[in-house]
Amino acid sequence: MSYAIGVDLGGTNIKYALVHKTKGIEFQNSISTQAEKGVDHIIDRIATGIKEMVEKASTPPIGVGLGSPGTISLDRKWVANPPNFPGWEKVDMTTEIYKRTKLRALVDNDANLAALGSSRFGAGKAFDSFIMVTLGTGVGGGIILNRDLFRGASGGAGEFGHVTIDYHGPLSNSKVRGCIEAFLGQRFMSRFAAERIAQDVENPLFKRFHNLYDTLEPVHLFEAAEDGNELAIEILHKAGEKLGYGIINYCHVLDINKVVVSGGVAKAGEYILEPARKTALASLLPTFAEDFELIYEPLGNDAAILGAASLAFEYLDK
Amino acid sequence: MSYAIGVDLGGTNIKYALVHKTKGIEFQNSISTQAEKGVDHIIDRIATGIKEMVEKASTPPIGVGLGSPGTISLDRKWVANPPNFPGWEKVDMTTEIYKRTKLRALVDNDANLAALGSSRFGAGKAFDSFIMVTLGTGVGGGIILNRDLFRGASGGAGEFGHVTIDYHGPLSNSKVRGCIEAFLGQRFMSRFAAERIAQDVENPLFKRFHNLYDTLEPVHLFEAAEDGNELAIEILHKAGEKLGYGIINYCHVLDINKVVVSGGVAKAGEYILEPARKTALASLLPTFAEDFELIYEPLGNDAAILGAASLAFEYLDK
Repeated sequence: MSYAIGVDLGGTNIKYALVHKTKGIEFQNSISTQAEKGVDHIIDRIATGIKEMVEKASTPPIGVGLGSPGTISLDRKWVANPPNFPGWEKVDMTTEIYKRTKLRALVDNDANLAALGSSRFGAGKAFDSFIMVTLGTGVGGGIILNRDLFRGASGGAGEFGHVTIDYHGPLSNSKVRGCIEAFLGQRFMSRFAAERIAQDVENPLFKRFHNLYDTLEPVHLFEAAEDGNELAIEILHKAGEKLGYGIINYCHVLDINKVVVSGGVAKAGEYILEPARKTALASLLPTFAEDFELIYEPLGNDAAILGAASLAFEYLDK
Repeated sequence: MSYAIGVDLGGTNIKYALVHKTKGIEFQNSISTQAEKGVDHIIDRIATGIKEMVEKASTPPIGVGLGSPGTISLDRKWVANPPNFPGWEKVDMTTEIYKRTKLRALVDNDANLAALGSSRFGAGKAFDSFIMVTLGTGVGGGIILNRDLFRGASGGAGEFGHVTIDYHGPLSNSKVRGCIEAFLGQRFMSRFAAERIAQDVENPLFKRFHNLYDTLEPVHLFEAAEDGNELAIEILHKAGEKLGYGIINYCHVLDINKVVVSGGVAKAGEYILEPARKTALASLLPTFAEDFELIYEPLGNDAAILGAASLAFEYLDK
């Protein structure tokens, strides 16, 4: 079976792709999620996307892999309480998708699938074991150990955003003070940047954003850094240092010293990754520092969709 | 095979025991390590202990499990650079022990074996998956996942002492600022206690220790706490809170929410564990907080020896 269908369920859009086992994505498309219309409606829309991809395939796909927010059961069939999906308590996605498409399906969380996609199709191919850190609206993660997903006792390992590096630090959406998400989650990084920019009235960023801080995003800091704006470089540098401290914690718990960083915020690239690397190397135990690597995943959102398809290729018959 | 021999190699003493597969320790003894006399001498002494236990066994033991400091190879045969063992670079313990005793042997680090011993003979029997935190001179750890040791990519997982909760905090022996060991390592806890006691000239602890802070150990804080000394209770409470923040990090990375605490410092019991539990529960993600447990391992040093024997029972033929 050379094809599988990868689906990425988001709060706004459902992305889906026809993926070839070795060649990767052959077709992809997306439709709006319309989460407010309820669970059945959303699954109907997922099924519509799947059927569209089945039409495109020259041979029957092996099945469907689905990336989803929410709590995923250890058997990868159920999804419970995804945030921002009203009325969605607990849904057997495997059964619901089969009913509508006659295809077998498995679910996992999107950060795990980004790690799997990176491992099979992206920068993670270089490593048997690595930690993926996803820097976006929130901070998440996935763990690849010996080329397999490490999921912990119940399927929820790798909650990297909720690891503290400063127990009396700021709060994010979680209750963990000074957690990585409170420093690198998109909104929290933007808020920290706004506070610094507000003190620097001569800075071009002040002139552009001083009444519009709600619209400030990490990408603007990156653009300013590229223009040589020292304040932007400093803000990204400090964020990178925080990421470095988080990585020390992940490595020392897991004994995995290869790190792949993905997601929107990570597009600031070496402005964040270089200080992260330096901070981690300065404090890692020698055995972990020795061949430590921290790299960027250029696949972007495709990593999760490729990982979803990989789930179908490799785990449906496990 | 009903018997195995468990050995715990320490800088000062070598402890060894004859362990029955279901009944636990039947005989145990110890001899001085004499680490300064070099590797061959130490292994001779280990072999002497093993032979003493073989004599006691009513049926031939299956083999030897050895707990050791230093870096252990993934195949559990080699030990490299144990601290405080001069001239010990890299030694194939399996071969050296076989040469002297004709018994098969495997090695693992003592914190991993304490976790395995707890899982098979101690408080950890209650859990399929748990995190063991060992609080002694240093802070270490072992991870049991689905009743098996989780060792990471190279055998070094669970370096819990070197996980930071305060990146601008104090240093311990490692280069990680504000790591758990810098708060709960025996010497660091004593130093913090001494600083607090020095400010409280009316306190019985001041009267006893003000010129003797080098001799202050966590057990004295525990004894004072039992006598109702509020300062001692406060110091242990603060240490427990730090442990709680560390546990949040371990749980969120590993998705394991049962914690067993062992080692000398842990003997301060609920004075440390209750604030640790409360701190962890206040910040853990709901899915982990739900059935979170934090308990004490009463086996003490026996946990590592029982774990060493379990290594022989279960892993020699794996």
